[in-house]
Amino acid sequence: VKSYNITLLPGDGIGPEVISVAKNVLNLAGSLEGIEFKFKEMPMGGAALDLIGVPLPEETLTTAKQSDAVLLGAIGGYKWDKNEKHLKPETGLLQLREGLQVFANLRPASVLPQLVDASTLKKEVAEGVDLMVVRELTGGIYFGKPRGFGTNENGEEIGFNTEVYAAYEIDRIARIAFETARKRSGKLCSVDKANVLEASMFWRERVIAIAAEYPDVELTHMYVDNAAMQLVRNPKQFDTIVTNNIFGDILSDEASMITGSIGMLPSASLGESGPGLFEPIHGSAPDIGGQDKANPLATILSAAMLLKYGLGEVKAAERIELAVLDTLNRGFRTGDIYSVGNKLVGCKEMGEQVLKSV
Amino acid sequence: VKSYNITLLPGDGIGPEVISVAKNVLNLAGSLEGIEFKFKEMPMGGAALDLIGVPLPEETLTTAKQSDAVLLGAIGGYKWDKNEKHLKPETGLLQLREGLQVFANLRPASVLPQLVDASTLKKEVAEGVDLMVVRELTGGIYFGKPRGFGTNENGEEIGFNTEVYAAYEIDRIARIAFETARKRSGKLCSVDKANVLEASMFWRERVIAIAAEYPDVELTHMYVDNAAMQLVRNPKQFDTIVTNNIFGDILSDEASMITGSIGMLPSASLGESGPGLFEPIHGSAPDIGGQDKANPLATILSAAMLLKYGLGEVKAAERIELAVLDTLNRGFRTGDIYSVGNKLVGCKEMGEQVLKSV
Ligand SMILES: CC(C)[C@H](C(=O)O)[C@@H](O)C(=O)O
Ligand SMILES: CC(C)[C@H](C(=O)O)[C@@H](O)C(=O)O
Repeated sequence: VKSYNITLLPGDGIGPEVISVAKNVLNLAGSLEGIEFKFKEMPMGGAALDLIGVPLPEETLTTAKQSDAVLLGAIGGYKWDKNEKHLKPETGLLQLREGLQVFANLRPASVLPQLVDASTLKKEVAEGVDLMVVRELTGGIYFGKPRGFGTNENGEEIGFNTEVYAAYEIDRIARIAFETARKRSGKLCSVDKANVLEASMFWRERVIAIAAEYPDVELTHMYVDNAAMQLVRNPKQFDTIVTNNIFGDILSDEASMITGSIGMLPSASLGESGPGLFEPIHGSAPDIGGQDKANPLATILSAAMLLKYGLGEVKAAERIELAVLDTLNRGFRTGDIYSVGNKLVGCKEMGEQVLKSV
Repeated sequence: VKSYNITLLPGDGIGPEVISVAKNVLNLAGSLEGIEFKFKEMPMGGAALDLIGVPLPEETLTTAKQSDAVLLGAIGGYKWDKNEKHLKPETGLLQLREGLQVFANLRPASVLPQLVDASTLKKEVAEGVDLMVVRELTGGIYFGKPRGFGTNENGEEIGFNTEVYAAYEIDRIARIAFETARKRSGKLCSVDKANVLEASMFWRERVIAIAAEYPDVELTHMYVDNAAMQLVRNPKQFDTIVTNNIFGDILSDEASMITGSIGMLPSASLGESGPGLFEPIHGSAPDIGGQDKANPLATILSAAMLLKYGLGEVKAAERIELAVLDTLNRGFRTGDIYSVGNKLVGCKEMGEQVLKSV
């Protein structure tokens, strides 16, 4: 029996509910493939602020680093919204990404035939959308220095940040993107603002340099404003998109909303080595936290990404993916993806149904 | 007879065609309201590069500054795409904005009942959308210093830019946004990334400070990633949006595509005093330039914004707006907004029809 150490970070709001369900699914899928998991649950986000006073306790980061993969629920909530920056749940998430050095954020957005009606886009525009955003996650304006508050040469108060990319940061995310595109349709679109920003000109230059290593992948470039339009106009034109941290934040959320079912969408954040971080892209939804209303499928699918990208356990991953599709085919729906004619269930019951299909 | 000096900047691609049509419409609407225009046509963008070697000749900027308002067609094209930064048509546009100090970019995006089918969004999501993006246009990461290329402390090559806002820059755009919201539905949404960026925290702080001057306007805040989602999920929730230069670039393009008819959308860029800059939001469309296929309505509506926001000539502006609606009601459509049952016309013919309705 193979054995893996998994750090679970339930976090806030609906986080604990969806993590608990995903844990059961991981256990069953693993056992059917001869894999055993040792789970360690650690506090993070608002939960950690309440318990320990910081959004990412050292012990949580150490445990995460020493494990084989990390599964996160969701963080944040009204309660901590007014906190100072270093006491925000979000800051804990940024520290976790930096601490694990997970620079590559993979965010698939695909429209399942069963859920095409959930999209606000016309059926003919939405159906068949299947794209992957590869977002740089540990650089750019999120982490660039100098940053802060001060005064300019006229004595005026200012707030400022630095968008900066070093060659190695672009090169490594570009390679991940080319590898990803190669395994998909072989089309990669790099999104930047190279008509205005030097950081983007440099981004484009490096992406083009790395492209020489992947002659089989077709590389195109698009300005970020145009990409934001094209995602609405014709999302099917995209396969793999690679972009910087802030543009990736915006475009991956836009892309996920285009599917109409963000309660379904997982993500993986990977580094050069060391454990990956896997999490649903939805937030902590504090308004429905603890009410057994959350859709656990995004977290279950994040567990599948954990198996595939984090542990290389492709069979167990596919078992979970198929189980989710089967559960949808059997008509089970949480409130966020419910449509007439289907069976409305809560978070736990959805988990039970997926277990039946595993 | 009142008389105004208007600088026309036809620019590249379809620019000259749409400007020529808009000029005729301005002339007629003006003459019916006792207004006379003196037009001066100046080179700008690729046209200026070919003629003079720079994207914004000094004489063009001087003429623009000395006039009462500036109407721009569109700039850019494949021919100049590989130019160095200071020789890009886009650089000329940024220099023009900076030179005229037009810090407030107003970009309306509304779905006309006649054109609701042009949206890729479902009818019930698209119909009734009527929002205004107020984008800061002469600050932030577009103009922030330091910027450029260099090496970091490890000797690694880097590209970098600075996102920076001074209090006065935020205050003045916030005031324009509050005024705009007040004249519309009284709802203003400020978009930032204050959970991560100091520049955004400062932005939010200043917007809240200015809000005290506008107790009748309801102010909300939204993170930019969420805004990109909400524009797809339910664009009708927005009335006036205010945001920084780069977020405004992305979100206003996304919002315009949601209407499905970017060939229809005008924009106004205004300063504290001095002439405003008015332009369609669509690009130069070099692939159809000179073929009499362009939709001139966005430029015609930009001329209406010029009259309303630039010259305070509200009557003449409304004359043009009504003429555009009437022309649509009579079934005239250029290719980009054509649907079965309507009359397909070219750029010139569309202009003739609008003249009939003025
Ligand atoms: C919570 C926030 C800091 C985070 C980000 O901006 O990266 C989130 O929006 C995301 O995309 O994971
Ligand atoms: C052409 C480019 C420099 C410009 C911008 O980024 O501001 C354009 O996208 C716009 O929105 O007017």
